[in-house]
Amino acid sequence: MPRYKLTIEYHGGPFSGWQRQEDRPSVQGALEAALARIDPAAPTATGAGRTDAGVHATGQVAHCDLSREWDPFRLAEALNWHLKPAPVAVTAAAPAPDDFHARFDAIERRYLYRVICRRAPLTIERGLAWRVPAALDVEAMRRAAAHLVGRHDFTTFRSSICQAKSPVRTLDALEIEQLGDEIRFHVRARSFLHNQVRSFVGTLERVGAGKWPPERVAQALAARDRAQCGPVAPPDGLYLAQVRYPDGL
Amino acid sequence: MPRYKLTIEYHGGPFSGWQRQEDRPSVQGALEAALARIDPAAPTATGAGRTDAGVHATGQVAHCDLSREWDPFRLAEALNWHLKPAPVAVTAAAPAPDDFHARFDAIERRYLYRVICRRAPLTIERGLAWRVPAALDVEAMRRAAAHLVGRHDFTTFRSSICQAKSPVRTLDALEIEQLGDEIRFHVRARSFLHNQVRSFVGTLERVGAGKWPPERVAQALAARDRAQCGPVAPPDGLYLAQVRYPDGL
Repeated sequence: MPRYKLTIEYHGGPFSGWQRQEDRPSVQGALEAALARIDPAAPTATGAGRTDAGVHATGQVAHCDLSREWDPFRLAEALNWHLKPAPVAVTAAAPAPDDFHARFDAIERRYLYRVICRRAPLTIERGLAWRVPAALDVEAMRRAAAHLVGRHDFTTFRSSICQAKSPVRTLDALEIEQLGDEIRFHVRARSFLHNQVRSFVGTLERVGAGKWPPERVAQALAARDRAQCGPVAPPDGLYLAQVRYPDGL
Repeated sequence: MPRYKLTIEYHGGPFSGWQRQEDRPSVQGALEAALARIDPAAPTATGAGRTDAGVHATGQVAHCDLSREWDPFRLAEALNWHLKPAPVAVTAAAPAPDDFHARFDAIERRYLYRVICRRAPLTIERGLAWRVPAALDVEAMRRAAAHLVGRHDFTTFRSSICQAKSPVRTLDALEIEQLGDEIRFHVRARSFLHNQVRSFVGTLERVGAGKWPPERVAQALAARDRAQCGPVAPPDGLYLAQVRYPDGL
């Protein structure tokens, strides 16, 4: 059966997350329902990352095996037709090698986290960013973030239900960009622990708000103790932005 | 009664437009309902521009007269509390002279129109931009837009129900910015005719898509004939971005 690589965008708001669940709407479930409409074998879709409820994606990747060959353009068009009106879209489709695996072959994942600093509630961006009520000190957050980059035991920054065997990960980058009253966190690693990005952002917000000195983040990391983490930032601001593969995949 | 100037942001999606209407949700109606909760006189709110159904604002301005003096910060906080859960927020409040008029004193209005060029339906940006299915030629649109800037009779580019006495307006700027697959139209004038920005964008899209030569826009303008206008762009992409006043207002 020919395998295809799909690049997928979604608004996480209406979903219980990426992963298929009984009786609750999921992105994987919506995609598989569309696949069932175009292929009698009702193919499954395997995603690169299992985003949580409310988390968005602009560059999720999944693979699926179809009963016949498809022109990639027509495949994306057909899936998008059947995905309507769910806020899920296939932005690219491509044939993939039979052994391509969206999750295990990924060599890098990039997340974006959007914070908007202001008193007024969000309207246009509601559900699309985390509103914090005052300006944050970006330089202090950058100093704190520098402690997190590199290979570390990230026990402090993973959810208690994280299923990864090891808490050790290599954080390749945590860059903080200011755009008016918006602050964007760009985070890159080969793989992440459960809630790792939201734990980073919630902790860095404490630094930016002046509640924590930047060094406290280094101490929290070294403690390898979940209780030392700051509050976990809400899902609304998080976007799975890109999944990268070796050349040719 | 002390007068206040309010800067207002809203998501136009759930509203029939700015203007108060019987039995239909409006932004003005939502704001006045919040004003009635904080002031027994149930003040009216007069806006700088009457945006249509589905049109957003990041910088609408309104004035209102209150029964007593308010600290501006507390006024914005109180209104935002009572506006919930409507996607309307007061982003700034300030005392204003007794004769300040949000509409008549405005010396410039700025609109933003967002177009996203791609095949896939919008998900995260649904309702927040106009999706067009292929890339647009920005240089051709800029050449066409140059014909529109300046003082002209804009009969071609105003809705048939426009109530303005004169179709003559001075368009100060129509700038086109490309950001990846997004194209942003930045439009500035002292005042606009009804549907003028959406008529511009819908017409320029025809040029960008290669369906119209840029010169046809000059001919359409000179014709002073509504039938010569391109299709009117949908409201989803339009934002009232800023209203400017003389110094001190």
